[in-house]
Amino acid sequence: MASVLAASGPSDWRPLDPRDTLYLELASGRVVIELAPHFAPHHIQNVRTLAHDGYFDGTAIVRVQDNFVAQWSDPNGSRPLRGAAHALAAEFMVASQDVPFVPLPDPDTYAPVVGFSDDFPAARDPKTGRAWLVHCYGMVGVGRGDDVDSGNGTELYAVIGHAPRQLDRNVTLIGRVVQGMELLAALPRGTGALGYYAKPEQRVPVKSMRVAADMPASERLQLEALRTDTQTFTDLIEARRNRRDEWYKVPAGRIDVCNVPLPVRVHPAAGG
Amino acid sequence: MASVLAASGPSDWRPLDPRDTLYLELASGRVVIELAPHFAPHHIQNVRTLAHDGYFDGTAIVRVQDNFVAQWSDPNGSRPLRGAAHALAAEFMVASQDVPFVPLPDPDTYAPVVGFSDDFPAARDPKTGRAWLVHCYGMVGVGRGDDVDSGNGTELYAVIGHAPRQLDRNVTLIGRVVQGMELLAALPRGTGALGYYAKPEQRVPVKSMRVAADMPASERLQLEALRTDTQTFTDLIEARRNRRDEWYKVPAGRIDVCNVPLPVRVHPAAGG
Repeated sequence: MASVLAASGPSDWRPLDPRDTLYLELASGRVVIELAPHFAPHHIQNVRTLAHDGYFDGTAIVRVQDNFVAQWSDPNGSRPLRGAAHALAAEFMVASQDVPFVPLPDPDTYAPVVGFSDDFPAARDPKTGRAWLVHCYGMVGVGRGDDVDSGNGTELYAVIGHAPRQLDRNVTLIGRVVQGMELLAALPRGTGALGYYAKPEQRVPVKSMRVAADMPASERLQLEALRTDTQTFTDLIEARRNRRDEWYKVPAGRIDVCNVPLPVRVHPAAGG
Repeated sequence: MASVLAASGPSDWRPLDPRDTLYLELASGRVVIELAPHFAPHHIQNVRTLAHDGYFDGTAIVRVQDNFVAQWSDPNGSRPLRGAAHALAAEFMVASQDVPFVPLPDPDTYAPVVGFSDDFPAARDPKTGRAWLVHCYGMVGVGRGDDVDSGNGTELYAVIGHAPRQLDRNVTLIGRVVQGMELLAALPRGTGALGYYAKPEQRVPVKSMRVAADMPASERLQLEALRTDTQTFTDLIEARRNRRDEWYKVPAGRIDVCNVPLPVRVHPAAGG
């Protein structure tokens, strides 16, 4: 993989759009989330509005369930939403024709076809003509109640364990963590039901969550993602399907969509 | 799932054999590992010998790589092995006919057939007549060098992220964590290459690792595992393939072998 990336050219990389980038600030550091506006435009606009308004500042990570999710929200559920919507129609799937798609050649347990769309892990069903993002490690979604239209983005979660693909098409995914994932994954697990922290003092404070575009340019990270519609990415998948490292003796010959690395780096000119 | 387990009878459960149970003791608590002697008898016997001899006492967790593994060993690699072997022939696969197998009905990306063997997640290939354990979350394996026969059990790892199935058939798995997984998964990630802790003081001390059979009976946990060759387990899989909770709107209709829960409980008569 290192050699494939070393051979990449500048055009293989896509700068993250500051409007589609969230900075979740914890005492331990910054978690960077890239948003997927083609898949959940209304939820994402609501999250942008909430973040712009400072809604998340002083909220907390309230739930960390082992091998499942870390979730943050207003513990008291009492903050005003002001310009943001209280509930949004589900954005579980889109029309396949409306989004790009780079298919993987290998079979998947859950979906007829899996691959990448806008450089996010995704699936589609040729029979229904629908496409959707899939719940790989690091994906970020919108908590909701039993009503499919009950989510609004005030309660967000990131996957911290084996891909809970049973959630696919049941919940609105808005993006994925592209940096700082270890800050969420290494949090102490909650001991209450569903991994909620049993005591308020166990909650992990969220200093703020901001859209990068709302921050001064000097405070933004210059990140870029490897484009999945490139020969470099095709080469990377092949290098991962058939590992040539000396250590591997039986190449898998296949790869799970959630095992494909989606590299993000600091723009070389930005210095590290 | 709760209702399926509530309807289970005593014969659905199998007590863990103390000879096949390891207690990894950390300052944060006990991690319990169940061994799979049908799959790696020689590695497991070596680990039993090492544990009996106190080899692991005072070693450390030296590597925690996000979305991959937590690994423990003698940081200095200088402890005497005494009666234990220095290197063992690989135990990556066994003959299918030598082990039981409860197949899952759903397709898998990596193997022709997946399911459960001795209540561990496993795979088999009818063409080759081989069966092997698979790298789900919580599975425990034996670190090795580039030589397939270079592992001896002094260096062990547990999977703490999305199943790295590319490791299947490339490394000897000896069992899985059945309790205390969150103590490994929530450890701070190492910042060195491959997730090794960069500084010795960051290592997480291993107080001891013992075979339960070597402990006084009063210090053993009375754990039992749900048998996978029972109607109760079949019902549990079905309840998970097609979630009937009010929250789920689109049942997956399928399940990944690594998403199937393998319940372990304290024996009801043991209180606890």
